[in-house]
Amino acid sequence: MTVTYSELSAKGLVIEKHPNPTQFENHSDLPSSRATDYLLEVTWTIDQGWGTPSLHPYGPLSLDPASSVLHYATTCFEGMKAYRSFDGKKVTLFRPLDNINRLNDSCARASLPQLEPNAALALLEKFVEMEARFIAPGSFIYLRPMVMGTNAHLGLTTPTEAKFLIMASMMPKLNAAPLKLCSSPPDQIRAWKGGFGYAKLGANYGPTLKANNEAIKNGFSQVLWLMGEEGIVTEAGGANFFAVIKNEKTGKDEIMTCPLTTGVILPGVTRRSVLELLRNKYTSEGVEVNEKEFTISDIEKASDEGRLVEAFAVGTAYFIAPVQTIRTPAGKDISVPMSIGTSGDYAHYIKETLSQIMWSKVEHPWSHPVASAQ
Amino acid sequence: MTVTYSELSAKGLVIEKHPNPTQFENHSDLPSSRATDYLLEVTWTIDQGWGTPSLHPYGPLSLDPASSVLHYATTCFEGMKAYRSFDGKKVTLFRPLDNINRLNDSCARASLPQLEPNAALALLEKFVEMEARFIAPGSFIYLRPMVMGTNAHLGLTTPTEAKFLIMASMMPKLNAAPLKLCSSPPDQIRAWKGGFGYAKLGANYGPTLKANNEAIKNGFSQVLWLMGEEGIVTEAGGANFFAVIKNEKTGKDEIMTCPLTTGVILPGVTRRSVLELLRNKYTSEGVEVNEKEFTISDIEKASDEGRLVEAFAVGTAYFIAPVQTIRTPAGKDISVPMSIGTSGDYAHYIKETLSQIMWSKVEHPWSHPVASAQ
Repeated sequence: MTVTYSELSAKGLVIEKHPNPTQFENHSDLPSSRATDYLLEVTWTIDQGWGTPSLHPYGPLSLDPASSVLHYATTCFEGMKAYRSFDGKKVTLFRPLDNINRLNDSCARASLPQLEPNAALALLEKFVEMEARFIAPGSFIYLRPMVMGTNAHLGLTTPTEAKFLIMASMMPKLNAAPLKLCSSPPDQIRAWKGGFGYAKLGANYGPTLKANNEAIKNGFSQVLWLMGEEGIVTEAGGANFFAVIKNEKTGKDEIMTCPLTTGVILPGVTRRSVLELLRNKYTSEGVEVNEKEFTISDIEKASDEGRLVEAFAVGTAYFIAPVQTIRTPAGKDISVPMSIGTSGDYAHYIKETLSQIMWSKVEHPWSHPVASAQ
Repeated sequence: MTVTYSELSAKGLVIEKHPNPTQFENHSDLPSSRATDYLLEVTWTIDQGWGTPSLHPYGPLSLDPASSVLHYATTCFEGMKAYRSFDGKKVTLFRPLDNINRLNDSCARASLPQLEPNAALALLEKFVEMEARFIAPGSFIYLRPMVMGTNAHLGLTTPTEAKFLIMASMMPKLNAAPLKLCSSPPDQIRAWKGGFGYAKLGANYGPTLKANNEAIKNGFSQVLWLMGEEGIVTEAGGANFFAVIKNEKTGKDEIMTCPLTTGVILPGVTRRSVLELLRNKYTSEGVEVNEKEFTISDIEKASDEGRLVEAFAVGTAYFIAPVQTIRTPAGKDISVPMSIGTSGDYAHYIKETLSQIMWSKVEHPWSHPVASAQ
């Protein structure tokens, strides 16, 4: 008998209705971080490819103790949100194919199977349709698509079995306080040239907890991840980082963020959107928006010379987060200006603009309506 | 009510007898890589510490889909073996506390809870006692202690729940053919200064599969992991790497392996043992045994000048593996001498000596008898 390899397909999706769906009067009654009711699950084997997708009640997975993911970190994921407009009528995703394509890049780096992008999007939409009742008007739920290796074999081998899952959770209200960042300790960096910082592998996250815990213990919100002896600024916590300085020569504002070319930072969907918005809005005013390497010393020097304009972190989970303080590796606290109180102008502009897109206050090609979700 | 935090303890171990233990006439009837019958499991919570250990029939774990280990690679492990002497009478471990201490170092790096070392050893012994019937005379089983984060929370947080597991498997007969190593591609390195190469985290393994697959596709056994533009030689596959060259100045053999000081390589238990054996045996003959950085160019130069003596990889899984070929990043194949046919003299000496210790042909402090196991 010939075994045929199947690509991921949303056709034939089996929906197993929840016997006991969560009852709630108000969304605010639901505990934050709580999982929603359903789990989307698709199983893959190296010989047969992707099986029939199933949308079933959320519950524990049964995994062999020797499963690849448990020992060898063969796992990658995405973070996304599903938004509901303030009038309650529209449910949307934000540039979802960008996340799906990045998940495929991560799968390739982790030697995991890839997903047919349109099938993955169709399954994501189906999932959001099923869980749309958890999204309050003007709010969102957090979506977590992931792929992990599940074959049971204690020797290190490329996964021959895997699962694609989509789950979701309520999210706590974001802390709106501007971030206090602490430079990463010299014995801990997040990523390196020739590593896998550009891919959203689990392996990029667990090892950051140690420095993060130390930062929080010392009163900071997040770690500012530096790289190399020169202290190249890469990311802030699990988000991309932007600094704005007045250029020494031109006197004009220069917006800087770490480039993707070295492969050390995550190519954030929010990052890309922020760059596009800033370039469209400010280039004509002479503001430069540059993806380039800069160091913590560059920020410190700009601050000393009164040229530091603002700084902010951007990402799906924390959205647009202005930065108020940065502690240098030498222990000096740089106070970052916030031109309009709790934010700088640039961060304020992109937060407002993206919010309008995400919550359907304007029509925009980045907003992806889930037509079936009400 | 006050909650008391408990350290790991072997006291109160609950043994749940297997209802249907594996029946076999000869060990050779058992498939390689097959799990043995039991799983040791201890659960930890941040408030209560370690619970009662349980030794129960091997079977699937029930894990919440949002479990930390599945998303954030909060996992670390050890590789060990339990050996049975050729006369069948003795079952031993090899320097087991070294592995347990390293597991604790890995836990610290991965923000996972640590184990009281003597309790962990007692549980390991109990496990080996239970599974000793799977170890043929003159053979071994492979042991896998591991700790992983199990709390279900989609936000990245330090594990508040974890499991310590011990499982074991039969192992395929090792391929005795000398290794062919291919230098890691420039866009993929295993570890870096400020990373976590020194800890046995899952996050060090999954991301190596990509380069390893490419190497195997091209006819090599393993990747020789280089670091930085200068090509510092760090590890071979999942093992430590040794090269022997004739020193340019003294003309004497110099045995070299990457130092631990930079934190990029795993502090192998076999590595440490090999260094001790070589120093004891050869230092008086003027042979230098150096933990120092050396590059792929150093090896190539030594080969060009007829000064390359031998090379070998050492580790628990692959034991002592002589190297026959190394492909440089430029694509040149260095032929590594093997003075006695399929091995060099040094590799042969340490393989013989360690074998005698592991299979109880000699009494040695590194050999740890499991008295209760027969």
